Amino acid sequence: MTPLVDQITIIGYGLIGSSIGRAVRARGLARHVTCADISPAVCARVREMDLADAATSDLAASVRTADLVILAIPVRSYAAVAKIIAPSLKVGAIVSDAGSVKESVFRDLTAHLPNHVHIVPAHPISGSEKTGPDAGFESLFEKRWCIITPDATTNALALTTVQQMWEGMGAMTAMMPPRQHDLTLAITSHLPHLIAYTIVATATDLGKDLESEVIKYSAGGFRDFTRIAASDPVMWRDIFLANKDAVLDMLQRFNEDLTALQKAIRSNDGDMLHDVFTRTRTIRQQIIDQGQADYRSASTASPHTPPAEVQRKSGQH
Amino acid sequence: MTPLVDQITIIGYGLIGSSIGRAVRARGLARHVTCADISPAVCARVREMDLADAATSDLAASVRTADLVILAIPVRSYAAVAKIIAPSLKVGAIVSDAGSVKESVFRDLTAHLPNHVHIVPAHPISGSEKTGPDAGFESLFEKRWCIITPDATTNALALTTVQQMWEGMGAMTAMMPPRQHDLTLAITSHLPHLIAYTIVATATDLGKDLESEVIKYSAGGFRDFTRIAASDPVMWRDIFLANKDAVLDMLQRFNEDLTALQKAIRSNDGDMLHDVFTRTRTIRQQIIDQGQADYRSASTASPHTPPAEVQRKSGQH
Repeated sequence: MTPLVDQITIIGYGLIGSSIGRAVRARGLARHVTCADISPAVCARVREMDLADAATSDLAASVRTADLVILAIPVRSYAAVAKIIAPSLKVGAIVSDAGSVKESVFRDLTAHLPNHVHIVPAHPISGSEKTGPDAGFESLFEKRWCIITPDATTNALALTTVQQMWEGMGAMTAMMPPRQHDLTLAITSHLPHLIAYTIVATATDLGKDLESEVIKYSAGGFRDFTRIAASDPVMWRDIFLANKDAVLDMLQRFNEDLTALQKAIRSNDGDMLHDVFTRTRTIRQQIIDQGQADYRSASTASPHTPPAEVQRKSGQH
Repeated sequence: MTPLVDQITIIGYGLIGSSIGRAVRARGLARHVTCADISPAVCARVREMDLADAATSDLAASVRTADLVILAIPVRSYAAVAKIIAPSLKVGAIVSDAGSVKESVFRDLTAHLPNHVHIVPAHPISGSEKTGPDAGFESLFEKRWCIITPDATTNALALTTVQQMWEGMGAMTAMMPPRQHDLTLAITSHLPHLIAYTIVATATDLGKDLESEVIKYSAGGFRDFTRIAASDPVMWRDIFLANKDAVLDMLQRFNEDLTALQKAIRSNDGDMLHDVFTRTRTIRQQIIDQGQADYRSASTASPHTPPAEVQRKSGQH
């Protein structure tokens, strides 16, 4: 593929950042990939594994010749990092990101970056509970959605470059306003994570004896929550604080629904339980039909293999 | 393997029942496997796929020569089925089950079965959101726990037979009182399912437009809940009603913890969030270390392949 830019600088080389780096290099989307990470240990590891053409902890220096800068760091660090890189960004540079909240991102970047750069926030809906440069892999974004949240002032050429970059990495792109993104993700991602963290904490608090049994018998449902609740603590702390209003709104709705089910159990209302459990069943099939049902990981992801659930489906039901 | 019994009758030939049938036949644990299912369509399918030596919808007839009867049906059907089979059970027959609640099971079976049979309740902690005889597979119970809940009156030989049957199918067995089982499962399985059903219902209720986006962007966490919330509605209605007190108790604890996190978000208490999210992370590793982290399905389960997460682990971190 013809490179879309000469130099891309990825700030934050964890699961997402290093996966972007891997994908950009493997597909030739940029002539030069620079890793910028405040952790010297991460930079050393990146050099050791040859995951970028250059690796530095000097964020300001890392963006000096960059055509495209992608922030792949916790969202509450954006303002601080924007301040650091602002004086070094060249005229016409594009600054994008991979953060899970978009209204606050846009606000923080706009406040601190110079007018001569183009801001194009983006969010790939893909991830894992794994962290660090070792956990990334080239196909993480394949067949996954990447939401781009431009506004009326967004430069069209910069938008196209970001879009092509994600599509070049195998993602499908969608555009929506930042507010709509934040509401959608509050229910599809942020609330599920909050619930998973809560239930794992509740179980752990039941004491050391029961905790051991919780682990032993986790195959009954609990273990699915533990995977989600193993996600990066700093990243998720930042998400909940940055998307506070939408998360609290969704939590309110969730609580109302949970209270209704609780009441049905208390009053032995089997019909109500059955109704809800039947409705929720159909949505799973829709997710399978849209090819978003498989859990993506380094050992299972491949562009040549359909998701496991799709393969299985044909032999069943 | 030398057969443990001459005839086993499995009542209810869905995911669990048909998996027991498959495992018992494949490993020669009984000389004769009888499928009993009130659905003639299921019996026809069982004959078509050759999943048992005999298949009938006449439950009473199915147990007449059975040495071991296993109920693999929703727990609130136990009393009705026990009444039907009671007059036909032979002296010394063992009646066991695979239900997810044990106090109510023991009560319902004891109330309706004759004194000349041995009741040994059991619960394999293994399952899937799939249902029906086609969804079962021989290795479903391999390396999974099966909890057996005897009491002071349980016949030792009958207990050993049930234990050997499950171990013969590849399961690990544990013994505990019915009450302890019900409390443990309330937190490891029943509450997670209730929460998953709730959040999927909440998201669905957000309206048709958002629903479509909910599916599109479900890879952010939501889809893990949809798998659980696709579980059998009748089975789960029965579980919540049969284990009502324990589920409501765990739900109360969960609500307290959720309220605390909600308050932390509202008051921007990032330290509290970070603390909880860090604690919950460690439990995942313990589940991986105990080999219970993989999602078992017909296409991935194999006695010769270690769980995917275990394989992956060695290459990361």
